[in-house]
Amino acid sequence: MSNIPISIRERLEKGELIAAIAQDFDSKEVLMMAWMNLESLTKTLDSKRATYWSRSRNSLWLKGESSGHIQEVQSIAYDCDSDALLLRVIQTGAACHTGERSCFHTEIDFA
Amino acid sequence: MSNIPISIRERLEKGELIAAIAQDFDSKEVLMMAWMNLESLTKTLDSKRATYWSRSRNSLWLKGESSGHIQEVQSIAYDCDSDALLLRVIQTGAACHTGERSCFHTEIDFA
Repeated sequence: MSNIPISIRERLEKGELIAAIAQDFDSKEVLMMAWMNLESLTKTLDSKRATYWSRSRNSLWLKGESSGHIQEVQSIAYDCDSDALLLRVIQTGAACHTGERSCFHTEIDFA
Repeated sequence: MSNIPISIRERLEKGELIAAIAQDFDSKEVLMMAWMNLESLTKTLDSKRATYWSRSRNSLWLKGESSGHIQEVQSIAYDCDSDALLLRVIQTGAACHTGERSCFHTEIDFA
């Protein structure tokens, strides 16, 4: 936990959640966006497997725990106002529960 | 506004904000994450220039309005639970107010 930057740790210790964007390490495709609390970020740093906080289930969510579609975290950056994380991951299988590679698989038509 | 998917429009009409990730159209670098409300998404679709909702200023925020660092939106995808958008943009200059190309310019050390 010691390597969580202070600006982020302070947020998380107040009970705030932080947005976490997962990007494919090789293709740079954006795979999903989820949320982290202090426990999930700590677990992610310790295990190098992406672990989010499920807002719907109100519980820790080790990505791929049931599906096997884990995310091996290669690096994590944070943004200039310390309210979002960018995880570059090696994704096993599909990131999306629908079976699509990315959760962002539907386009808005605005031609 | 008619081309905003119902699942997203319903959220925004309730006054919720939706996360919007901006990704460089060519390099696929993730540039920033900000928020949109119904008005900012409508303006973005109409103008094809990224317009966010500033939570700190509580006002519409045409990206680059003062800096000239606009984002020309090439496509917008939304995720499987309709709570995040992915904008692929052509970024003029820097996305970050610090002058860095991306807001995600600081890494967490977790080797």
